[in-house]
Amino acid sequence: MFIESVKTPGIAHLSYVIGNEGKACVIDPQLDTDTYLSIAGKHNCRITHIVETHRNEDFISGALALSNRTQAPVYHGEHADETVQYASIARDNDSFEVGKWLLKVVATPGHTKDSISLACYDTNQSKTTPIGVFTGDTLFVNDVGRTDFYPDEKEHMASELYESLQKLIALGDQVIVYPAHGAGSVCGGGMADREFTTIGFEKQYNPLLSVQQKPEFIRQKVTEHHYISPYFSEMERANVTGVDSPVSDMVIQPLHEQRVPQWLAESDKPGLLIDVRAHAAFRDSHIPGSLNLPGDLLSAYGGWLLDYQQPIAIVAEDKESARASAKQLWRMGFCNLSGYLTDVPFPLTREQQHQHSIDTVTADVVEKRLSEFKEKDWVLLDVRKRDEVESMAFPGALHTYLGHLKQYKDKFSADTHYTCMCGSGKRATVAASYLKMLGCTHVDVFTGSLQAWEAHQ
Amino acid sequence: MFIESVKTPGIAHLSYVIGNEGKACVIDPQLDTDTYLSIAGKHNCRITHIVETHRNEDFISGALALSNRTQAPVYHGEHADETVQYASIARDNDSFEVGKWLLKVVATPGHTKDSISLACYDTNQSKTTPIGVFTGDTLFVNDVGRTDFYPDEKEHMASELYESLQKLIALGDQVIVYPAHGAGSVCGGGMADREFTTIGFEKQYNPLLSVQQKPEFIRQKVTEHHYISPYFSEMERANVTGVDSPVSDMVIQPLHEQRVPQWLAESDKPGLLIDVRAHAAFRDSHIPGSLNLPGDLLSAYGGWLLDYQQPIAIVAEDKESARASAKQLWRMGFCNLSGYLTDVPFPLTREQQHQHSIDTVTADVVEKRLSEFKEKDWVLLDVRKRDEVESMAFPGALHTYLGHLKQYKDKFSADTHYTCMCGSGKRATVAASYLKMLGCTHVDVFTGSLQAWEAHQ
Amino acid sequence: MFIESVKTPGIAHLSYVIGNEGKACVIDPQLDTDTYLSIAGKHNCRITHIVETHRNEDFISGALALSNRTQAPVYHGEHADETVQYASIARDNDSFEVGKWLLKVVATPGHTKDSISLACYDTNQSKTTPIGVFTGDTLFVNDVGRTDFYPDEKEHMASELYESLQKLIALGDQVIVYPAHGAGSVCGGGMADREFTTIGFEKQYNPLLSVQQKPEFIRQKVTEHHYISPYFSEMERANVTGVDSPVSDMVIQPLHEQRVPQWLAESDKPGLLIDVRAHAAFRDSHIPGSLNLPGDLLSAYGGWLLDYQQPIAIVAEDKESARASAKQLWRMGFCNLSGYLTDVPFPLTREQQHQHSIDTVTADVVEKRLSEFKEKDWVLLDVRKRDEVESMAFPGALHTYLGHLKQYKDKFSADTHYTCMCGSGKRATVAASYLKMLGCTHVDVFTGSLQAWEAHQ
Amino acid sequence: MFIESVKTPGIAHLSYVIGNEGKACVIDPQLDTDTYLSIAGKHNCRITHIVETHRNEDFISGALALSNRTQAPVYHGEHADETVQYASIARDNDSFEVGKWLLKVVATPGHTKDSISLACYDTNQSKTTPIGVFTGDTLFVNDVGRTDFYPDEKEHMASELYESLQKLIALGDQVIVYPAHGAGSVCGGGMADREFTTIGFEKQYNPLLSVQQKPEFIRQKVTEHHYISPYFSEMERANVTGVDSPVSDMVIQPLHEQRVPQWLAESDKPGLLIDVRAHAAFRDSHIPGSLNLPGDLLSAYGGWLLDYQQPIAIVAEDKESARASAKQLWRMGFCNLSGYLTDVPFPLTREQQHQHSIDTVTADVVEKRLSEFKEKDWVLLDVRKRDEVESMAFPGALHTYLGHLKQYKDKFSADTHYTCMCGSGKRATVAASYLKMLGCTHVDVFTGSLQAWEAHQ
Repeated sequence: MFIESVKTPGIAHLSYVIGNEGKACVIDPQLDTDTYLSIAGKHNCRITHIVETHRNEDFISGALALSNRTQAPVYHGEHADETVQYASIARDNDSFEVGKWLLKVVATPGHTKDSISLACYDTNQSKTTPIGVFTGDTLFVNDVGRTDFYPDEKEHMASELYESLQKLIALGDQVIVYPAHGAGSVCGGGMADREFTTIGFEKQYNPLLSVQQKPEFIRQKVTEHHYISPYFSEMERANVTGVDSPVSDMVIQPLHEQRVPQWLAESDKPGLLIDVRAHAAFRDSHIPGSLNLPGDLLSAYGGWLLDYQQPIAIVAEDKESARASAKQLWRMGFCNLSGYLTDVPFPLTREQQHQHSIDTVTADVVEKRLSEFKEKDWVLLDVRKRDEVESMAFPGALHTYLGHLKQYKDKFSADTHYTCMCGSGKRATVAASYLKMLGCTHVDVFTGSLQAWEAHQ
Repeated sequence: MFIESVKTPGIAHLSYVIGNEGKACVIDPQLDTDTYLSIAGKHNCRITHIVETHRNEDFISGALALSNRTQAPVYHGEHADETVQYASIARDNDSFEVGKWLLKVVATPGHTKDSISLACYDTNQSKTTPIGVFTGDTLFVNDVGRTDFYPDEKEHMASELYESLQKLIALGDQVIVYPAHGAGSVCGGGMADREFTTIGFEKQYNPLLSVQQKPEFIRQKVTEHHYISPYFSEMERANVTGVDSPVSDMVIQPLHEQRVPQWLAESDKPGLLIDVRAHAAFRDSHIPGSLNLPGDLLSAYGGWLLDYQQPIAIVAEDKESARASAKQLWRMGFCNLSGYLTDVPFPLTREQQHQHSIDTVTADVVEKRLSEFKEKDWVLLDVRKRDEVESMAFPGALHTYLGHLKQYKDKFSADTHYTCMCGSGKRATVAASYLKMLGCTHVDVFTGSLQAWEAHQ
Repeated sequence: MFIESVKTPGIAHLSYVIGNEGKACVIDPQLDTDTYLSIAGKHNCRITHIVETHRNEDFISGALALSNRTQAPVYHGEHADETVQYASIARDNDSFEVGKWLLKVVATPGHTKDSISLACYDTNQSKTTPIGVFTGDTLFVNDVGRTDFYPDEKEHMASELYESLQKLIALGDQVIVYPAHGAGSVCGGGMADREFTTIGFEKQYNPLLSVQQKPEFIRQKVTEHHYISPYFSEMERANVTGVDSPVSDMVIQPLHEQRVPQWLAESDKPGLLIDVRAHAAFRDSHIPGSLNLPGDLLSAYGGWLLDYQQPIAIVAEDKESARASAKQLWRMGFCNLSGYLTDVPFPLTREQQHQHSIDTVTADVVEKRLSEFKEKDWVLLDVRKRDEVESMAFPGALHTYLGHLKQYKDKFSADTHYTCMCGSGKRATVAASYLKMLGCTHVDVFTGSLQAWEAHQ
Repeated sequence: MFIESVKTPGIAHLSYVIGNEGKACVIDPQLDTDTYLSIAGKHNCRITHIVETHRNEDFISGALALSNRTQAPVYHGEHADETVQYASIARDNDSFEVGKWLLKVVATPGHTKDSISLACYDTNQSKTTPIGVFTGDTLFVNDVGRTDFYPDEKEHMASELYESLQKLIALGDQVIVYPAHGAGSVCGGGMADREFTTIGFEKQYNPLLSVQQKPEFIRQKVTEHHYISPYFSEMERANVTGVDSPVSDMVIQPLHEQRVPQWLAESDKPGLLIDVRAHAAFRDSHIPGSLNLPGDLLSAYGGWLLDYQQPIAIVAEDKESARASAKQLWRMGFCNLSGYLTDVPFPLTREQQHQHSIDTVTADVVEKRLSEFKEKDWVLLDVRKRDEVESMAFPGALHTYLGHLKQYKDKFSADTHYTCMCGSGKRATVAASYLKMLGCTHVDVFTGSLQAWEAHQ
């Protein structure tokens, strides 16, 4: 009688396999179907049910792919407008038996209209007192789901979420909460850096769950600010029809340095180089025109800055990290991968060197520039999130969220000198690489950014 | 901010790694120190604390070995008589900071005198409301710790446990319970086949936790029956001084068939062959004198039936299962392993065939024998646990618990015909192999045993 | 500058990856495309060439699947009648550059008409003296390819092979030989249990390579005896059009015991249970009607005894061995796998017991029966290969090759008592399980078979 | 009947496991004993022999550790002066039977006095014609062993080697050569980038093996230039007494950034930070005082630049690369590892920035400096090997071999401006980091170095 969670790095997504007596149910699978087959198999269980807690907007659902491989049906909550084509409808109070587990659907609209939770009972002991609940994007550890996906219905959705949360609270203090995201997700801002909790604990400490009055709850939710990445709409489209990935995540082969210029130049479909090496290595030397997106930043900002049509090649320290990055892209639907390379050519002249590297500047230099420079000549570009800026503004900086650089690309001028900053210098390097791609020639990075500023004062 | 559990198969033991901000605490480690270093490392944490919830009696603690490799101190509850030599004392209300985690010692004597639990607080949110508790062998899912280890103080220990459980209940319904054993352990009889629960759920459904009155609780505990395996005392001795395993679990090499007769015959230290192949394969053909102990039965009955002085060789289907069995033995302190072999010689004559195989008999045959045979000639030997026999006796069978066969070995007669039975036929095969080792020549196995009997009626 | 071999168990097939300077060539790939991508990637090479040394008849070629994943072209030798549809033609003296490697095609017909070898040069040192040669099924360690695939042209093919071997000898004593099969293959009878050799060594010790005169060589080849498994023709068909496996080898899920009777009985497509557990376990207890094919015997005899239309379920000791067996079947084109089960039900009555088990008999019993029994009543069935029988006949035994049991199934009578024998008792158990499937009710296995007989004398 | 090679990265060392019929012999094992046990086990073989081809000087032999774990004896060639304490002597013509393999000792002094080769016979086919030979450091692919380890006996050793090579040639053209090093080793300069060859091929193409006359051979050998790393003497001492590693290679834990300053400053044993990140990342930002030694450079130059007494901490991109580096150090006997860290603090001021980074300069800048600068002010420091400098000198550069920087550390002046160069810029970055460690404040790296220079011309 097991519950195992699978954490997908980058998007901090949590999917689950719950099983007993030879049967298993997978909740919110990613495209990596082998992972779920392997967990179920380890417990000698056959996957008999697949459930989606809602139509995911931040990754391609693996439900259809898993269903094709296992013949298990997919269940999905009800939605008046758009019916998920590969799923049966799971309505409030419907239930599934998975061995001695009983999973009961609790309709919990609010984050989306089709959101459901699954209360989970160990029928050896009780069919009325649940031991756990899979809350999807409705309730997280220390946060609740965002309710801004229907711009015209923000109040309504917040109201729905309030009612849904009351239903979860009513399940009892003893219930363990299994949410669909952990800290680091774009699906909620205040998640704790801890991935397990109970209804009893959240009731007391979750800032929004402890709001007693519905109007106050609605007021707080409608004034929240979240970003909506442009790739969300792509994911939503994909997750209505369903995707059984046409390519395997494993196939990424070396692409050799000599072939890169030709590859980049192919006129009808010029390629994009994504450099997933560490920020420091990128700043020291990179292929001109490449975009730095290391580690989790690839998942966090790839959906904002990349293009589904453009062929992509990866620059990585080694093949393992190239492969991991390819997998992140694959989960977001970017399948047009030409290969990877692990060597970066060096510049031959001082002029080229400028194109191959990005300078860093320290806090004292930024301080001096702020006191000396005037408008047009120099811009200190702060690419943090709005929430971060609101809680700690940086006087003198121009704020443009990193995710918005593509949208506002026409606003950047090739002649302006930009110093990019963020909280630590990491996103600033991504921003600097993007500005360079746009043709800005005078770009540097405020090393340490806000952390350095504070230490320097 | 993570908690990861490590389940040790065979003894159904659960150890934990809890970490945050670069520090990690390991609770009740096994000898497999790499496992804990690997989990802590995955989260970029250094092991800074090791805690034992009590002096374990069913395996060799890995605390000293892990401490030697990490320089982290070991903490252990207080015990008037025997002080664990490699540990500092953890007293009631002592606390450890592991990043933002706070672990607070709750002295919970009852199972043993030195038993402690560790209440666990996420100090980002609360230093007063715990989110979890590591309960050692004090509280399990659906059961509580056994209290029979001090034969003269059974009532006293049960009373202690009652008080300890009240302390755990007082932590609140919202607390997630992390016990030291799951279903299948010898440390409690009624554990659920589910490894996660909360105080709130247990308060309602755990049969013993819901007993309101202390005298009734004591009455139930003192009338419980548990077996005490003879190897427990060996483990206890080892776990007072501490063991940093002199041998690695990895070193088990093939031992070739031709060398076996010589190896078995070495006069000063005759070896024992443990055949860990499936029951069916063993019954069809095995090396005369070998003992069948496949899968989890090796952990469950090895401590009863084996001898610490005797060299051991393993007969296995392949090297992977030989290695897994070697690891099980190593965790129990059996380090005298000569090798393994994967081939079993065949008998040449009908007489030898008898020594190389064990017959099975079906329910109808047993029924017939029961109605026909008389005392001395034939014995139907039921080797189940006392609890099983009490809940479903088998008329006509002589009961001797499988673990007791060695202790009562003089009672078995070479001339008697024994038919071994248990719940399913598996332990019966172990028993039959043991009786054959003792020199009984007429031994068979009731295939399916109780399950078959019920299906047959 | 690397050459790595990949050995496929069961069919003892050897494929190769050869690479340098970012490019790699794969020779005779199996369907497991990940293996080759992973080896090439480890050396930072992109697969740029795929070569088949001939149209394989004992497994499904992975060339098309690998080509689809890498866009690398496939090359194949010339064949007047049947052109491999997914490949370009590689003619004598064609050559491929793979970094500093030069691979030169040597047309070596004989085993098949389209057989080629690839001489391999390290151009850093010499473009005229090869360092290695990939010989496909033309030359093995201690043997040469069989020449019996075109029944009407046996002499011609033997003559072709003789000429081809002279071309290989002419490459020089210093050449390392990389054949497509090692010991245990059905593609040649006398291969050494060693997988590496040189032209110089073979010239001296390979029995057929040391035959000086062509007529004598032809005489020896045409009098050789080989079996042609019926699945060969299926493989040949598949390997002309090419197969990009529609199913992944990874997807095999548990199938529960309770569902088996229903699954077996489905009228339009009754399923077949393949029991891949060890012989001994099978003999002790199995599901009536199941066929024992453990380990390599699945690859060796599956093609003879199975049916491409029949749904298959696997009975295994655990999921790992079920998965390994599924993979063996997948490589032979058997994709209709319903699942696996790891529990075998026990018989309830003495009558059922007979159906659930197979008895073994020892050498002394066989001796006695041979001297007592008369024709119709009892048959000692020797299922060894013809070569084995010829080199050591067993007086009194009826010989039918294990692979021929299906073909001659009408010759077996339900009333006859069969004792199956082979070299060691393993294939005898397979035969016994097949006879039981056919409805023979009185079947046993001569344990140890020839080995036991010799030891007994 | 198998031979498997194990390649140890960094030092390009090749060890071998050869086995048959349940027995295996390991030749020149590294400390990673599990690797050999695992290979032998895969073939169902027990390690029964361990042979060292000579006393290794570039790594700690694992022979004693493996012998302790397997009870297999160690054999080593004869040496008048220093007897390896844990080994029996293997004399010319001694032989070992490993199943059907016969290994015959061929005394091949020259590289060292105790060097032996092992001719290897498949006794199924011939006890007189070998199929392979393990040549240790006597014969490599395209090179022969260095003969400069006894400075007073260079001519004698070269003469010995010549005679030894004649013995190997006499084994026959058909013999496959298994050397102890591949390309990249410090044990020979001209090895091919291919790890397999035959006597026949080497006889024709190996530059030194094809030298017909002994005097000419000696002349060439005594004029060769090789470096002798100072750690060689440490290894030699260790390999006379034998080492059974007191620490496991697996134990390296995170060391947090905050603790580093204290750790570095501990007065009695100041620690050294080895930064194994890529050159580019190191140049952009590193902890002042740390030494850059990424990838194979750690093995190649660690023995030159590190100190056996100094505690070491590793700065790495992630824990996997920290662990791989720890393992490289462990094989060279550096066991004093305090931990690793994955974060590098940023500088706060422009002054600090200078300490935290290393500038790169391009070819055009170097050209300009060469034409303008005069002696004392600026030095272009070429750290390549003497052979490289001899084959392509760089006018205007001062040559000091990278391995010699420690030895000549007093020659570097804090006031001089150094631009480091090598073949590609990689070793130049190591040199720059070392000069900075010594206190030089004005250090930069010629990016691309010779490659850039050539492309620039």
